[in-house]
Amino acid sequence: MAVTVADFLRSTRDAHFEEFLELLRMPSVSTTPELAGEVHACAEWVADRLRRAGVPTVELVETKRHPVIIGEWLGAPGKPTILVYGHYDVQPADPIELWETPPFEPTIRDGMIFARGAADMKSNLITVIQAIEALAAAHGAPPVNLKFFFEGEEEIGSPSAPEVVASLKDRLSADGVLSCDGGMESPTRAGLLVALKGITGVQVNLRTSNTDLHSGMYGATVPNALQAMAKLAASYHHDDGSVAIEGFYDGVIELTPEERAEMNEYPATEAEILAQAGVAAAWGEPGYTIFERMGARPTIDFNGLWGGFQGEGSKTVTPCEAHLKITSRLVPGQDPSRILELIKKHAKDHAPAGAKVSFTASEWGAPAYAVPRDNLLQATAERVLTEQYQSKPLIVRAGGSVPITATFKGVLGQETVTIGFGLPGSKVHAPNEWFREADFDRAREVYAAYLGAF
Amino acid sequence: MAVTVADFLRSTRDAHFEEFLELLRMPSVSTTPELAGEVHACAEWVADRLRRAGVPTVELVETKRHPVIIGEWLGAPGKPTILVYGHYDVQPADPIELWETPPFEPTIRDGMIFARGAADMKSNLITVIQAIEALAAAHGAPPVNLKFFFEGEEEIGSPSAPEVVASLKDRLSADGVLSCDGGMESPTRAGLLVALKGITGVQVNLRTSNTDLHSGMYGATVPNALQAMAKLAASYHHDDGSVAIEGFYDGVIELTPEERAEMNEYPATEAEILAQAGVAAAWGEPGYTIFERMGARPTIDFNGLWGGFQGEGSKTVTPCEAHLKITSRLVPGQDPSRILELIKKHAKDHAPAGAKVSFTASEWGAPAYAVPRDNLLQATAERVLTEQYQSKPLIVRAGGSVPITATFKGVLGQETVTIGFGLPGSKVHAPNEWFREADFDRAREVYAAYLGAF
Repeated sequence: MAVTVADFLRSTRDAHFEEFLELLRMPSVSTTPELAGEVHACAEWVADRLRRAGVPTVELVETKRHPVIIGEWLGAPGKPTILVYGHYDVQPADPIELWETPPFEPTIRDGMIFARGAADMKSNLITVIQAIEALAAAHGAPPVNLKFFFEGEEEIGSPSAPEVVASLKDRLSADGVLSCDGGMESPTRAGLLVALKGITGVQVNLRTSNTDLHSGMYGATVPNALQAMAKLAASYHHDDGSVAIEGFYDGVIELTPEERAEMNEYPATEAEILAQAGVAAAWGEPGYTIFERMGARPTIDFNGLWGGFQGEGSKTVTPCEAHLKITSRLVPGQDPSRILELIKKHAKDHAPAGAKVSFTASEWGAPAYAVPRDNLLQATAERVLTEQYQSKPLIVRAGGSVPITATFKGVLGQETVTIGFGLPGSKVHAPNEWFREADFDRAREVYAAYLGAF
Repeated sequence: MAVTVADFLRSTRDAHFEEFLELLRMPSVSTTPELAGEVHACAEWVADRLRRAGVPTVELVETKRHPVIIGEWLGAPGKPTILVYGHYDVQPADPIELWETPPFEPTIRDGMIFARGAADMKSNLITVIQAIEALAAAHGAPPVNLKFFFEGEEEIGSPSAPEVVASLKDRLSADGVLSCDGGMESPTRAGLLVALKGITGVQVNLRTSNTDLHSGMYGATVPNALQAMAKLAASYHHDDGSVAIEGFYDGVIELTPEERAEMNEYPATEAEILAQAGVAAAWGEPGYTIFERMGARPTIDFNGLWGGFQGEGSKTVTPCEAHLKITSRLVPGQDPSRILELIKKHAKDHAPAGAKVSFTASEWGAPAYAVPRDNLLQATAERVLTEQYQSKPLIVRAGGSVPITATFKGVLGQETVTIGFGLPGSKVHAPNEWFREADFDRAREVYAAYLGAF
């Protein structure tokens, strides 16, 4: 054929960018039951886009929550088979009032697209499909065998994925996984993800009486659920920032000096990272740099805390219940179900007298994950990223968690290599999430180069 | 005239009870801006009801928030003049889902009327008007001179009242105030209120970064606003239940052995009070019984606490802000503005590193109040209540606050005597507030007896 990958990407650029915006307009928020229809519509859109790219077999697999899209394009006999992983769901947009422009109306300012999911990860999802379309346009079919697994539950901890992967084990068999759920370290330097933290979580509920009570009559005489919860929540950390749960650090594998050195070779200073986040002072476990903590130290995180009257004005009430959403980021050596039990035991042991504790299960539960450096997909990623960015990629241990990687490893026996294009500070999971327009072009080129390199 | 007060109350009983239900159907929630129209409609209804009772002069005085109803019926030359105080506003109904029947659809079960405002204080408001109507029916005019001051902002701390009282000082002059904003101690024993706690309050806001952040990346490295708020909130009390704010107890007047004995002569046991509230264990400042704490010890109360994600499911966010609504109940010797400053100073001094504290003013601010036992209105109340209940009333120091009493004392130089009919455990300020149907009859009789006794 006459067309090259580069030609194709150039000629389709504007139409493909419009597609990206179209995808961002879909409120595919997986955690919100009322938006299930929107999530499903987004899945259908993505499946259709795969078909239009030329993927011969595309199928929607329904789950209890949101469908998985699977597909196959085995057009390169003798070449390896890569399972491309991504997710089309996004985080909720609240607090909605802090967005400068509506989260599902992508808006371009200063070379950046602002929208929920722009960085995490609709940019990567659409550009990897477009790159595959370009490879097919140049070669008749992609020069590597491809399978697809795009889920709609990543932002709620991938609860259906293990079952779906297990039930489709043969159809998903491959030589390795390319996860598009990642980011780069700077506009000019790639990152090579070698480890991800694990995660577990639970909601702690605390009750002190049958009903809210009048604070004038009862404030001096009965426990206040908010005060009891404050005491309990405050007990999860020592004043120095380390986790106070008994046994929490047991079994955690200590970092080697080499690993520490690698992590501290971060392309931004601590001051820059804090300034970008608008934070006055760093915080966390003593004895480690913020880069070491971010990449390789476990945490207890409070994601939500509430009880009593939150409206405008006053209500002189002694509240009877309070709630605390906790997640914990895990590192190698920590078992998710054991840590979950320790979190719950701590709540029971430290609830003040008169406070009854109960738990609402969360969907999180995945151990930490590390990918070997000599794996074929990983070694190829390191080579291609070095070529594309003209410098060695930074070795990254991510604080985030992608529970599906543990499933691919455990059920399919496959390692996962991660390539994505969001940048640090792009406000994933927060208001005003953004993705650089320049990285839209970069992503299409790098994905095409990577999938063309086998 | 042939009709007696008792005859009149008997013949009008059913119609007057229907009126009570009609008043309860009005959602006169003063704190909710969206309900301002409903509050105003309620004011007009009450003003009209006063006119129908025969009060010759009734007027709505507009304020920045909700109108005050004033009125005069000076038909008893040579007799004392009593200013009748009440409020027609109610607390918000939330958490609405905990009501067994809708808060503004009064429902009768087991001899109790369930509705927001049933006990606090629409029962007292309507029955005192009906009692006055009965006195007029029997005597041509009430046998004591009456003035009226019914406000619509009591549940938000009476912010407009001081200005209105000052501006109408001459028209409100009287020999004392009868406040209908109170309750009884048991169905068979009256209480005589001799003291009320004061109140102040503020909302503490805490911020740790510009925006919510991804907990995977930032949970290990920057302060979490919820955790910072938990630490701060937990620092307001010692583990033993006493308030930990420096200087909080300075100047508090210690109770005499006689006062303690009076308070401990409470008609219910600690176990009964806790069981009624559904509380497993008492809580509060050590060294005092729950009756002493309820009546005469100052408190710091948390009324609302929130931040981060509260929806169903999960959001792995490091929240950037948290909020805490605090009120403080004050006793003699504590100045509201000084205590407010101490609460704010404590927040600034105890906010963890990296957390910025700011404040949202509340409308509360009133010192504690005590009424002399030998005051004419108070002595008459003691005598009439003894006759009506056939036993000496219990001497009550209430934990609740009625800021308007301080205004009547300071601006008009008048003491306030309180007679009301809600019972302990009637869930004022909480879901499923109730008032006994039997006490509707009792209230009409006692108010008529009291106002007929001068």
